[in-house]
Amino acid sequence: MIIDRLYNTVEEKGNICLGLDSRLEFIPEGLKEKYRDISKIIFQFNKKIIDETRDIVTIYKPQIAYYEAYGIEGLIAYKNTLKYIKEIGALSIGDIKRGDIASTAEMYGKAHLDGEFEADFITLNPYMGMDSITPYLKYIEEGDKGIFVLVRTSNPGAKDFEYLDVSGEPLYYSVGDKLQELASKYKGASGYSPIGMVVGGTHTDEATEIRNRYKDMFFLIPGYGAQGAKGEDVNLYLNDGNGGVVNSSRGIITNYKKYEDGEENFHKYAREAVLKMKEDLLNARWL
Amino acid sequence: MIIDRLYNTVEEKGNICLGLDSRLEFIPEGLKEKYRDISKIIFQFNKKIIDETRDIVTIYKPQIAYYEAYGIEGLIAYKNTLKYIKEIGALSIGDIKRGDIASTAEMYGKAHLDGEFEADFITLNPYMGMDSITPYLKYIEEGDKGIFVLVRTSNPGAKDFEYLDVSGEPLYYSVGDKLQELASKYKGASGYSPIGMVVGGTHTDEATEIRNRYKDMFFLIPGYGAQGAKGEDVNLYLNDGNGGVVNSSRGIITNYKKYEDGEENFHKYAREAVLKMKEDLLNARWL
Repeated sequence: MIIDRLYNTVEEKGNICLGLDSRLEFIPEGLKEKYRDISKIIFQFNKKIIDETRDIVTIYKPQIAYYEAYGIEGLIAYKNTLKYIKEIGALSIGDIKRGDIASTAEMYGKAHLDGEFEADFITLNPYMGMDSITPYLKYIEEGDKGIFVLVRTSNPGAKDFEYLDVSGEPLYYSVGDKLQELASKYKGASGYSPIGMVVGGTHTDEATEIRNRYKDMFFLIPGYGAQGAKGEDVNLYLNDGNGGVVNSSRGIITNYKKYEDGEENFHKYAREAVLKMKEDLLNARWL
Repeated sequence: MIIDRLYNTVEEKGNICLGLDSRLEFIPEGLKEKYRDISKIIFQFNKKIIDETRDIVTIYKPQIAYYEAYGIEGLIAYKNTLKYIKEIGALSIGDIKRGDIASTAEMYGKAHLDGEFEADFITLNPYMGMDSITPYLKYIEEGDKGIFVLVRTSNPGAKDFEYLDVSGEPLYYSVGDKLQELASKYKGASGYSPIGMVVGGTHTDEATEIRNRYKDMFFLIPGYGAQGAKGEDVNLYLNDGNGGVVNSSRGIITNYKKYEDGEENFHKYAREAVLKMKEDLLNARWL
């Protein structure tokens, strides 16, 4: 099962999920001059970062909004990035956060778990209910794919609805409980399910409670770095160093901007940022 | 303001929102043989339906999942469909249901309210909170655009989370109230705001209550036809015939399949279905 591959890769390489939020403003001028088309510029930026970090990064997560913003050219870069990740045997999350009625979800599944934009995992939004999630089960069963469903996100606005009181508990537990129930029907050898949860690394007050309640669920943990979460924060959402991957995007891919020789060495500074993050996570684990 | 244009178009043409869920299985064989590329096949299917119905349809709503499913070719058809709708002076809703943190929402705004996939309105998912909605305000202010945010959807699974009890009321009222508060700051001459709500035409028990609570909000009403809502159901969500548009997709674009001469006349049968739906809505109004 794909979740066992993810689990084993975490054992081997650590918890880093590298977010490819590759907007043009983040890309060195030299690269823009060298490659004419937007699709090539973005793809080459991603490729150089992937090549430089694949031995220390567990999974890559292109955020599709950054590609849709550049229209067809951007989406060609999205497609080629996912294709390249697959070719080199690495793992990917298509961060698409889709959520729609069953007949529409079926089409999103076709697009993102089977078709041109195929990724190993995709992110989903649960607002419309469980029939917006279950159409993806066939890809989990037949295509060895996985999903991460939003439960408690990392943004300040998470408080608006996700924290609303439902029978004495925040709403996100209603969502999480239903997902855990579904996930229990799909378990890999690692004990985790290919049905995982997005749990933001910020808002750490509830971290231990969430982790204990969903002990056997794999977490995608955003919020590290630019959004404010530190190693000691996100560590609370892991299970003895596994059971989750921690995403960082801007902190890694724009690290080069702090250095005078950054432009030519953007990929090396991305690697530097990944190594620093790994150290931060390891230190937090042994605190 | 775009919402006034929509209001006036409803006055003139009625409440029909034609959903372009144009999957290949819905497209006549003859069209597939005539045009080779998927992008052309889908675009020509849409174009013929639009040309045949533009005098009686108020707004067109391509559902992006049906285009993403065909990869880059599909998205070229999506882009060209929106472009064509704009060229002929008709109105469009990009049914994308995106929802993400502010920096990502900014990129979705760039893609779907300003960039290659520009539509007049887009649909949004509120799960992550109001900071996943407010980044679109600049397009409402500067670009004369509008949004429809999911409140209470038409699918059976809506019951899973949208109906959860929050302080004695279903969750969707918490979402709706926050949206109404935001919408009150943006009002057109029609009295409506370019910040609208998606309220499904099914689950009619609460219809009058929802309509009264959000009297000054414009509704996008899915669920008519294939999903089960009838004219008398969706009429409960309108304000004396305005204040909302009612979507139908499959019921219109696949109507031709019921007829022996359907294949060659698919666009005419789409028109027939629109006329029948208009009559159904009018009859319901005068019941």
